[in-house]
Amino acid sequence: MPPIKINHIAIVVEDVQAALSFWKDALGVPLQHVEHNEDEAVDIAFMPLGEGEIELIAPFTEDSGVAKYLAKKGSGLHHLCLDVDDIEGALAQLKAKDVELINETPRTRPDGTRYAFVHPKSTGGVLLELYEKV
Amino acid sequence: MPPIKINHIAIVVEDVQAALSFWKDALGVPLQHVEHNEDEAVDIAFMPLGEGEIELIAPFTEDSGVAKYLAKKGSGLHHLCLDVDDIEGALAQLKAKDVELINETPRTRPDGTRYAFVHPKSTGGVLLELYEKV
Repeated sequence: MPPIKINHIAIVVEDVQAALSFWKDALGVPLQHVEHNEDEAVDIAFMPLGEGEIELIAPFTEDSGVAKYLAKKGSGLHHLCLDVDDIEGALAQLKAKDVELINETPRTRPDGTRYAFVHPKSTGGVLLELYEKV
Repeated sequence: MPPIKINHIAIVVEDVQAALSFWKDALGVPLQHVEHNEDEAVDIAFMPLGEGEIELIAPFTEDSGVAKYLAKKGSGLHHLCLDVDDIEGALAQLKAKDVELINETPRTRPDGTRYAFVHPKSTGGVLLELYEKV
């Protein structure tokens, strides 16, 4: 089963409010809300756009994966997330093709969305997330 | 006027066929076609997905901007393109907010699409393209 659509493109930034001065105030992408996510130690600005979304992600600790990425590479495009119908089927299909997965089995967010990350080694350098919405 | 939707996310790769072995063969994103674009010295695989598109871009010379980016940063997410209704209005709005533009006025592709790039300096590190389709 192919992916259905782009769910979101995530941009890692130093500071969400500063980034919003471009994405919201200058460019005009509507802001839905900003979430202070303690589990992942990031603030996330959700900016729905058509059937997809732009997410601005700012770490608020220094030891998370996102914080280390920001420290090493600077702000910019961070990951691409695609919607799939059947995340277990998608992961099985990828494993059968020897694709390296960061999450071998789906994890679940508080809202019930199941997700898994595919390792950039297998995608040509792209951190890829797959979502199956409830 | 806010942007309408994500038009495409562009991924720079060493070789389009090798990248397709992941994106098409393993993940299952349908390939529309591969274009050998002499003007920009890149091969581009167009992979429509929902209302958006994934584009795999491989330079075939060593002196283009994309080739230099690939040599410096390696393969991965390259730029984000958003559709707008009125590209001249969007550029005027950005200029009024002191946003740095790579293209101060829209350029036109052979298919009539007008486009302009916004400098990563102003977006928090993201090379951003705006499209106005004909």
